[in-house]
Amino acid sequence: MAIKYELLKECPDTNARAGLLHTPHGTIETPIFMPVGTLATVKTMDPRDLEEINAQIILSNTYHLYLRPGHEIVKQAGGLHRFMNWNRPILTDSGGFQVFSLGDLRKITEEGVTFRSHIDGSKHFFSPESVMDIENALGADIIMAFDECIPYPATFDYAKDSVERTTRWARRCKEAHKNIENQALFGIIQGGMYNDLRTRSAEDILDIDFPGIAVGGLSVGEPKEEMYRVLEHTVPLIPKNKPRYLMGVGSADALLEGVGRGIDMFDCVLPTRIARNGTAMTATGRVVIRNASYAKDFSPIEDGCQCYVCRNYTRAYLRHLIKCNEILGFKLITYHNLYYLLSLMKDMRSAILEGNFLHFYKSAIDKIKL
Amino acid sequence: MAIKYELLKECPDTNARAGLLHTPHGTIETPIFMPVGTLATVKTMDPRDLEEINAQIILSNTYHLYLRPGHEIVKQAGGLHRFMNWNRPILTDSGGFQVFSLGDLRKITEEGVTFRSHIDGSKHFFSPESVMDIENALGADIIMAFDECIPYPATFDYAKDSVERTTRWARRCKEAHKNIENQALFGIIQGGMYNDLRTRSAEDILDIDFPGIAVGGLSVGEPKEEMYRVLEHTVPLIPKNKPRYLMGVGSADALLEGVGRGIDMFDCVLPTRIARNGTAMTATGRVVIRNASYAKDFSPIEDGCQCYVCRNYTRAYLRHLIKCNEILGFKLITYHNLYYLLSLMKDMRSAILEGNFLHFYKSAIDKIKL
Ligand SMILES: [Zn+2]
Ligand SMILES: [Zn+2]
Repeated sequence: MAIKYELLKECPDTNARAGLLHTPHGTIETPIFMPVGTLATVKTMDPRDLEEINAQIILSNTYHLYLRPGHEIVKQAGGLHRFMNWNRPILTDSGGFQVFSLGDLRKITEEGVTFRSHIDGSKHFFSPESVMDIENALGADIIMAFDECIPYPATFDYAKDSVERTTRWARRCKEAHKNIENQALFGIIQGGMYNDLRTRSAEDILDIDFPGIAVGGLSVGEPKEEMYRVLEHTVPLIPKNKPRYLMGVGSADALLEGVGRGIDMFDCVLPTRIARNGTAMTATGRVVIRNASYAKDFSPIEDGCQCYVCRNYTRAYLRHLIKCNEILGFKLITYHNLYYLLSLMKDMRSAILEGNFLHFYKSAIDKIKL
Repeated sequence: MAIKYELLKECPDTNARAGLLHTPHGTIETPIFMPVGTLATVKTMDPRDLEEINAQIILSNTYHLYLRPGHEIVKQAGGLHRFMNWNRPILTDSGGFQVFSLGDLRKITEEGVTFRSHIDGSKHFFSPESVMDIENALGADIIMAFDECIPYPATFDYAKDSVERTTRWARRCKEAHKNIENQALFGIIQGGMYNDLRTRSAEDILDIDFPGIAVGGLSVGEPKEEMYRVLEHTVPLIPKNKPRYLMGVGSADALLEGVGRGIDMFDCVLPTRIARNGTAMTATGRVVIRNASYAKDFSPIEDGCQCYVCRNYTRAYLRHLIKCNEILGFKLITYHNLYYLLSLMKDMRSAILEGNFLHFYKSAIDKIKL
């Protein structure tokens, strides 16, 4: 088996838990946030920066790498780790979310999905088998099954069809996956906002026996309370010996709520995307560095933050860089945002291990909602 | 005095020389290339990257910093060094080159230059006195006098008027400069391509007694042979105890030719600008990483290069990043290009100190011209 999850401690008051996830490229301390490196680079960040902020695992996108540079080139380079000079664990998604987001540009059949590239309109076909081929070529430590991610809202009947197709495709993925010794294939539970479909999907996916389980189809536009309700229903259905991954979630409040509901892994473009728009994340909420009010603010992004950026740069300097579209500005805010989220995860983990997660959660969630 | 130049060794075969330039923020080993940090950032590079490649001094632009964020904000931040988190020496130009490049957007009188911002068209006025105010506020170790940089070609009469005005303005700059203990003001020799005007300008500028002398008005579109001819005429007019700075030159061949003609300091946007266009500099010429021929080239930018980029990344990966407009691609090629030029300068300096510069020059210039 490529991975092994080791449960270290459960919170007495919530479903939060701390563990270790052993992978071919090292051990991850969970719960963890995974920075997104869509095109084999976490935008603006050098791998050395990522190591410095102690990013333990990053996510990369199968759909994007398939189109550019193409998985065969990555394979010839010796796999994604060598291609991008990142020697710690990597997770690749399946492209499911991306191709289903293409709307009119894609067509679904039982066999798979025909879609047009968002770059040049060229025609392509993804099936469970072809996605496994691609993910095997990329060589990530953890790879995701090709699923159907439905929009919000969706009718019960559509969600039901989709759950059933996702299960059939999950079986075909497991069948097609060729590198089980070095790559762990995770199954994905779908079912929209319907508890009984979530139950059905969980039973089906668990029946296939994947080494890790993701909760998909959330953070797709539904109110956060809906997401938390579905998590409360779904997570307890997953056996404790499997890592649980909530896809596409990366706001500080949702990380706190997700960990409290038993999630071990998260990913999201949010911290890197808003950084490039000049917005920083802090324990007391977002700071729009771009704003004129920071032109003469010679304090750091966040008082007390120990990151390289906050120890060396002022809001005034960062605002200047952002106003001038200087690349260093995008990079420094990205650096801080990722540091902030990774520190939040680390602090949550420490609190779980020390048995006071509930106290930590309450204090942190109150500040964020300021 | 803010700076002191120490001549260590002269080449027996050429006018090349090695020395030390002591400044308030440390000692620079000359000859040296200065990376350009137009807007208080060497584009894409973190100051830590610059230290890693051993950049000893950087240049920043008075015109640009005056417009954004404004010199008063930089002054309030504690000066340019603190604002941009760079603790080694900085040189600021005078804005002369930029405002004279604005064409129809500027008007010259004896008092100074009225110009319109290239950003928003707003109206501004630079005089020798106002430029000294701005450069004093920025606080660089070396500051440049406000000169008139004429286009190429220019008539003798225009060049003569300009030389005379540049001298009068140089006197006013020296008079207005308020921080002589911490900032060294360099004078600039003009005179276009006319030897007798260069002589006249050199005599006038040297008469004012600046601690360092620049040769301006070159690399403005003239054939390189013209530039070398003017250097051969002009540099010997400058006393050996003063550092000599050739403004706006940064191609590898011109650095070799300039050092051989007695220049100590260079600056140019070339290595950083072409990097952001996907072009790398190497000892055997330029490599357009963007080209399709590198899609599956798993060798480094330059075989044998010891820089961080060449030790860890392939041309295939860099091409992928550049094709996808990924910021990391711009940064990694910038890093290599600056490393390459700084290494070339270091190697030239070693050769001068070892008494074999001519041999080094011949071998290097032959390879570059491949
Ligand atoms: Zn910070
Ligand atoms: Zn290199």
